[in-house]
Order: sequence, then C-alpha cells, then structure tokens
Amino acid sequence: MINILVDKIRKTNAPIVVGLDPMLDYIPGYLLDSVFDALGETPEGAAEAIWQYNKGIIDAVYDLIPAVKPQIAMYEQFGIAGMRAFQKTVEYCRKKGLVVIGDIKRGDIGSTSAAYATGHLGKVKIGKKEYYGFHEDFATVNPYLGSDGVRPFMDVCKEEKTGLFILVKTSNPSSGEFQDRMVDGRPLYELVGEKVAEWGSELMGDEYSYIGAVVGATYPEMGKTLRKIMPKTFILVPGYGAQGGKGADLVHFFNQDGLGAIVNSSRGIIAAYQSKEYASFGEYNYADASRKAVEDMIADISQALQNR
Amino acid sequence: MINILVDKIRKTNAPIVVGLDPMLDYIPGYLLDSVFDALGETPEGAAEAIWQYNKGIIDAVYDLIPAVKPQIAMYEQFGIAGMRAFQKTVEYCRKKGLVVIGDIKRGDIGSTSAAYATGHLGKVKIGKKEYYGFHEDFATVNPYLGSDGVRPFMDVCKEEKTGLFILVKTSNPSSGEFQDRMVDGRPLYELVGEKVAEWGSELMGDEYSYIGAVVGATYPEMGKTLRKIMPKTFILVPGYGAQGGKGADLVHFFNQDGLGAIVNSSRGIIAAYQSKEYASFGEYNYADASRKAVEDMIADISQALQNR
Repeated sequence: MINILVDKIRKTNAPIVVGLDPMLDYIPGYLLDSVFDALGETPEGAAEAIWQYNKGIIDAVYDLIPAVKPQIAMYEQFGIAGMRAFQKTVEYCRKKGLVVIGDIKRGDIGSTSAAYATGHLGKVKIGKKEYYGFHEDFATVNPYLGSDGVRPFMDVCKEEKTGLFILVKTSNPSSGEFQDRMVDGRPLYELVGEKVAEWGSELMGDEYSYIGAVVGATYPEMGKTLRKIMPKTFILVPGYGAQGGKGADLVHFFNQDGLGAIVNSSRGIIAAYQSKEYASFGEYNYADASRKAVEDMIADISQALQNR
Repeated sequence: MINILVDKIRKTNAPIVVGLDPMLDYIPGYLLDSVFDALGETPEGAAEAIWQYNKGIIDAVYDLIPAVKPQIAMYEQFGIAGMRAFQKTVEYCRKKGLVVIGDIKRGDIGSTSAAYATGHLGKVKIGKKEYYGFHEDFATVNPYLGSDGVRPFMDVCKEEKTGLFILVKTSNPSSGEFQDRMVDGRPLYELVGEKVAEWGSELMGDEYSYIGAVVGATYPEMGKTLRKIMPKTFILVPGYGAQGGKGADLVHFFNQDGLGAIVNSSRGIIAAYQSKEYASFGEYNYADASRKAVEDMIADISQALQNR
C-alpha cells in the first residue's frame, strides 16, 4: 500500500491528505436541516448528515489527491450510527480510488493489538470464513507500550500489505510534556523515531517503508532532525492550516526526491466555506470551496518545495 | 463514580475487576455451534455468540464483584456487529449494577479527545437533544500526547462524574522500552505518575480521585514506588493470573486502608473452564467455573492483604 501511496502522490503531484474530521457545526445548515427533518435530531440523523457532507467533499476533491484521513473519534462519538458512517466513508473513498488512512491512534499489547490490527487493517477469521471490519489502508498507532504493542500490527500489515503511521512527535502545544524529555542527552521523540525506522526496515516497500511516522507541522526543526533519523519512513504531517503550519515550514519533512511526507489538512479543507478566504462560495457550494482550498494547498506546498 | 466504585469494593470485599475480553476460541463449542447454526459464520454470528457468552459470565459473577472491564478491541475486530455487542455488554453490566471500565486506550488532542470522551464517558449533543454513545463509567487513556490529550477527557468526567485510568506503567515485557527511560535521573513512568496525581488533584472524589492510573501487576516494585507518588490515585492493575501476577505481588499497589487498587483478570476468569484447575466444570458449566475462579481470586488477594 505504501507503493500505491507513493505512486498516487507522483501522479497527482499532491503530497497531501484531506482529513475527514466532520463536526456537526461544519455541516451547512441547509443539509443538516433536510436530514434532521427526515430522521430527527438523532444519532442516525447526525450520522447521515456527516455521510452526505463527506460524500459531497469526496466527490469534489478525489481526483486531486492521493489520500484521505478520517478521524474515527468524530464518528465514534455518535455511537453505532457514527461508526457506520465511518465505515461507509472508508468504503466510498476506497471505491473512488483513494488511499484511506484511519486516524484511530490505537495501541495495546499482544492479542489486543492484534485485534485492533485485524479490525482496521486486516480480516477477522470466523470459523472458515474471513471478513473485513473497518478496512482502512493505513492506521495511526500510539507507541507508548513499546514493541509488544506495535509488532502485532506489523504482522497484519505484512500479511495484508497495509501500513502504519506511528506517533513520534505530535502537533499539539503540550506534546513536549513527555515526548521532549531528555533521555541520554536526546529527546524521547528521537528515540521513538529511531525505533520506528528500525521497525520500518523490516517492512520495506520499493522506496519507503510500510511503517510511517506522525510528526506535527508545528515543529519544523524537529521534523528536520527526524527526517534524517528516519530516511526511509514516510511522515504524516498534521497541523497544516488551522493549527498554524504553513508550506514553507514543511520543506524539511520531505526528502530531496520531493517525497517522504504527506501533509494533512482537515478543517481548512472540509470547512473551507466557513473561512473568510472562501466565504464567497456560500454554504450551498461548500464542496467547491473545499476543492479550491485543496488546489491552493497543493500550490502552497509545491511552491515551497520548488523554493527550498 | 469513583465514590461508587470505592463503596462497591467495600461492600463486596473484592478489589477485583473481571476483564470481558472474549476471543472466539474461549467460547464453548456448543454455544458457538448453536449460534452459527442460526446466524452463520458471520460477524453477526460472532457478535451474538460473544454476547451470549458474556451474559452467562455476568449473570454468574455480578454479585461477587464491583466492576467489569470490557476490552473494546476484542469487539471492534468484528466491525459494526462487534461494536454493537460491546454496547450491549456495557448496557447489561450497568443494569446489573456493575461499574464499567471501558478498556479503550484512546488518546488524541483537543476536539478529538473531547469527541472520544463524549462518545464513551458523556453525552453527544445533536441539535437540542443529547445521547449516550457507548456509556461506560471509566475509560483507559494513553498519556503520550500530554495534557492537551487528557484535559478534554477530564472536562467530560467533571460534568458527568465519570472517570479515567491513565496508562502509567503497562504490564507487557517491552513496556520499559520507552516508559523506563531515565529522565533527569528518574524513569519516565514516574514523571507520568506525578502528572496523573497532579491532574487527579483537580478532580477529587471523597477519598480518591476520579483520575486513576494503570500499573501492571508484573512490575510490583514499580507499583510500590508509584503507590507513594500517587497516594490519592486508584490503580487499575492488569496482569494478574494469565500474565503471571500473583496475590502476593499485589499488596504494594494497595494503601494501608486496603483500598487504592483494583486488580483485573481476564482470561483466568472468563475462560477458567479451559484451564486445568477448573476443567472439571466442563464447557456447559463455563459460567460456574468463572464464578469459582472469581471466588478463588478474591481469596488469594484477601489473604495476601491480611499477610502484608
């Protein structure tokens, strides 16, 4: 799947991923009203509104981008109905030819990690049959529990040719509380980065590993160091746009081949019509506003990479 | 909810929690066959078998114990049908008067952590209405992202009187890879423990905090230190039984009041009939075997606490 991701990035010239992290207050009022009229202010109504909203955006941008990253928490909060909307979104994106990165930040040990891996990146065995659960192509994973937590995911990835993005340095202000603590004279996130590179060397695609890393756009200097520590690791970079990261901050996350990183934007794309910059589209054209925001983001990053 | 948990532990004299982590190969053949005959070897069949198996165990042990800890991964691997079995299990345990600790090990930042908290420990707002998602009383949380990741959970806990158990030192062999790294002369897990105590001081129940910690039974010496660093923190202790922890290893996780810890056993209880010790019950009496295993575990821990 990492080979497919690299191939798609080359074809689209767009090392970006659209974060499908819908909040009810992102959804245009006309769409919300029409769904609530039919299904009521219920979890089923909320889930249907999210699905219709997502579909509008996916249809408008799928030809421009290689991948999407649905954030499962935004669906999980609506219980079963929300999980169904997540599944439906993943399935539709796959049908549209997009690589799907499930932003699930799971992580446990042994058979429990294996169960998460099975449900998101593999197939579950039931008697003599096998079934997909949520069927993403990649999933984000938390490293705090160490190798015992990560290896069961790797086993499933190897079998299914799916992949991981492991949290190394997250984009939030307090990420340094534990991640930046100095261990033998070096910050913890560097040790995690080294471990990710080590795990990744066991699961190589053609150019990059099936095991990627998450490093926040908000820490460009750390990104520069981590890029060197993990040369064959694809970096998923959250924090562009709404969280403050800009194209120029991102160049050091990329290798000289122009590859090796994929930059996520969520609110900045999916709720573009609510921002001043794209307000002229109006809520009925929210998906067109998202398309324009994707085009602008691609241009911003291309420009930055050309000027490096 | 921490006050209710403490009260229930006092009443049952059982500082234990039964881990409802069903695997298909734990389920007695007669039960599996009868469900698959009706529903086929499908996710719906697997989910129904898990639910019936859980119900048998819950009915057999609910009067002996204060709490259960369903491991969501074991349900999530079966997709939507599995999540429904998780929800049904949580609901049934609440109806039986048990405190439910959702072992979900979620953790993200800002609005994403808030969404997980809403879905598991609070209510989601949809228009003018509010709904429970998965409706647990406590949830386990991963601290790697720092305060930004934990505070949104705390906000919901404050509102709903629900609680957290934050991973400090996990029970697996490789937990030391990152958690034991020395920071300013002390292992990282101690710093996390201090932070948990600090967060917890803001959300106190009568005797203990709403914010608990997870510390593995497999590391009794570290449990001793962490007990002192976090005097008002309830410790959830996995790793008893199948993972190798014994009653005698556990005394230092408790305070002198005999409280402050709750010990989990999963396979050792729910699949007791498969072990040599309880094999005489036979698969048709799997739930009675679980009840006996609970009684023996309570006796083992009581004994150890009396001999301390």
